[in-house]
Amino acid sequence: MTIGAAPPSVPVYFLSDSTGISAETMGNALLIQFPELRFDRHLIPFITTVEEARRVVGVLDAAMDGPLTPLAFSTTAVTEIRDVLHQTRCPLIDFFDLHMSRVETILGVRGQRAAAQLHGVGDIKAYNARMAAVEYAIEHDDGQSSRALKKADVILLAPSRCGKTPTTMYLALQHGVFVANYPLVPEDLEATELPRPVRALRNRCFGITTTPARLTQVRQERRPNSRYASLEQCGYELRRAEALYRSNRIPMINSSAKSVEEMSTVILQFLKQG
Amino acid sequence: MTIGAAPPSVPVYFLSDSTGISAETMGNALLIQFPELRFDRHLIPFITTVEEARRVVGVLDAAMDGPLTPLAFSTTAVTEIRDVLHQTRCPLIDFFDLHMSRVETILGVRGQRAAAQLHGVGDIKAYNARMAAVEYAIEHDDGQSSRALKKADVILLAPSRCGKTPTTMYLALQHGVFVANYPLVPEDLEATELPRPVRALRNRCFGITTTPARLTQVRQERRPNSRYASLEQCGYELRRAEALYRSNRIPMINSSAKSVEEMSTVILQFLKQG
Repeated sequence: MTIGAAPPSVPVYFLSDSTGISAETMGNALLIQFPELRFDRHLIPFITTVEEARRVVGVLDAAMDGPLTPLAFSTTAVTEIRDVLHQTRCPLIDFFDLHMSRVETILGVRGQRAAAQLHGVGDIKAYNARMAAVEYAIEHDDGQSSRALKKADVILLAPSRCGKTPTTMYLALQHGVFVANYPLVPEDLEATELPRPVRALRNRCFGITTTPARLTQVRQERRPNSRYASLEQCGYELRRAEALYRSNRIPMINSSAKSVEEMSTVILQFLKQG
Repeated sequence: MTIGAAPPSVPVYFLSDSTGISAETMGNALLIQFPELRFDRHLIPFITTVEEARRVVGVLDAAMDGPLTPLAFSTTAVTEIRDVLHQTRCPLIDFFDLHMSRVETILGVRGQRAAAQLHGVGDIKAYNARMAAVEYAIEHDDGQSSRALKKADVILLAPSRCGKTPTTMYLALQHGVFVANYPLVPEDLEATELPRPVRALRNRCFGITTTPARLTQVRQERRPNSRYASLEQCGYELRRAEALYRSNRIPMINSSAKSVEEMSTVILQFLKQG
C-alpha cells in the first residue's frame, strides 16, 4: 500500500538450546529501547547439536552479506555448542557467557552449563499445578460454575467485558494460580453487598474497572447500538462497580491502561502481602 | 515435617521498573544451572522513582546481614534509578548495563534508556489481537463451537485429555494465534478420514498424542475405574489417533515429554515454514 520501499529492517536472531523464550525476552528488552529502528526477528530454537550450531552459523554469516549488519542474541548454555556459535562473523550477544561466571563467583559454586530448559516441563509438580489451574480457570470463566469457588486463590469481579478472562488465563497458565472470574450483572450492581456466591470470599476478590469509553467500544463490537453498549449504561455500571469495590474494601485495578501482565503482577504482589 | 533445619536458601531479588518478567526470566535462566542450591526468590516490580529505588537499596542491604550473601538481578533502564540501585552492597547483575552499550555500538544508535514496559500494553493492535485470540480460544475450546473454525490459524486435534487446552491458551495469550481445539471422539477414531468439520482445514491441523500410561493417569482423575480411563482404551485411542494423523499427513506432537511452551514453539516454527 505504500509508495516507495519500506526502510530496511535490522535482522535479529534469537538462538537457544530450548524454546528461545528467554533469548527473545532478553533481546527484546534491549531492542525496545530503539523505537526508531525496525527489526526483522528470527527465532532459532532447539539448537542441541554441534551440527545444528554449524548450520546456524551458516545462516548468520549469510545474513552478514545483507544491507544491514544483523545482531544475534544467544542463551545457549552448552560449552561445545556455544564455541561453534561464536565462530560466526555476526555480532553475538551471549547472555550466558557474560553473566554465568559472575553468578558462579557470587554463589561460590560452578554452574552446570547444561541445556537447562527453563521453559520445559521442569518441576513436574509445579507444571501440573499450572495445567490444573488452566482447567479450573476455564470451568470457572464468567461465573459459569460456582461449584468450587472456594478453591479459588483469586476471584476477579467486574461488569461484563472489562477484561477479566485474559488476566484469569495468564495467572493460571504462568503462575498456577486458581482464578475464578465472576461477572457483576446489573442486579449485582444495584446492591451494596457483594453477590451471595462471593460474599464470604471477599478477601480473595479483586475488582476490575475500566473507562466508560473503552467499555463502550468493546461492548459495541459484541452488541452494536444496544443499551448494553451505550456510554450511559457503561458509565453507570462502572460507577456502581467501583462503589461496590470501595464499600467492600476490595482492591481495584483499572484494565484500561494496564496489560494482562501488569494486572497479574499487581495481583500477585497483593497475594504475597496478604 | 522434616527433622532438623532445611538448608538455607540464597535470597534472590528481581528488580524492575515494570512487571519484572524480563528480570525473572533472565535471572532464572542462570539460576537453573545451579540445581543443588535453593533460592528464596523475591520480585520487586514497578521501581519507577528514585525514592522507591532508595527503599529497595534498604531491603537489599538488610539482606546482606543474613547468613547467605544475596544476589539481585535488575532490568531497570532509567539511568538515575539504576545509579541509586548500584549503591547497594548486595551483588547486582544489571542486565541493562552490560548489554546496552554493546547493542548501541552494533546498531550505531543510542538507546532511549527509558522504562520501556516490554510487558505493558505496548503495540495496542498486537495487544488487542492477543486478547481477541484468548476469547476465540475459549469459544472454540473442546469443539464447543465450529461456528468460526475457518478463522482458526491452528486447529489442535487429539483424543480427550491429551493436553490440547493449555497449549491453545498459551498460543492465544502469548502469540495472538487463533487456535481451535477439536476432540477426537471414539467415532472419529474409527474413521480414516478426518472429522467433517476439520476435513477441508487439514493444513492448519496439528495432532497431539501422549503415552497410554500418561493418558490413563489423567483420565483416572476425571472418571476413576471407567472404561474411558482404562489403559486398553487409552492405548487404542492413541494408536488410532496417530494413524489418523499419519494418513492425513498432519504434524504430530507428543505432549507427554513436552511443556506447553515447547509444543507452542514447535507449532510456531511449523507455521513460519508454512
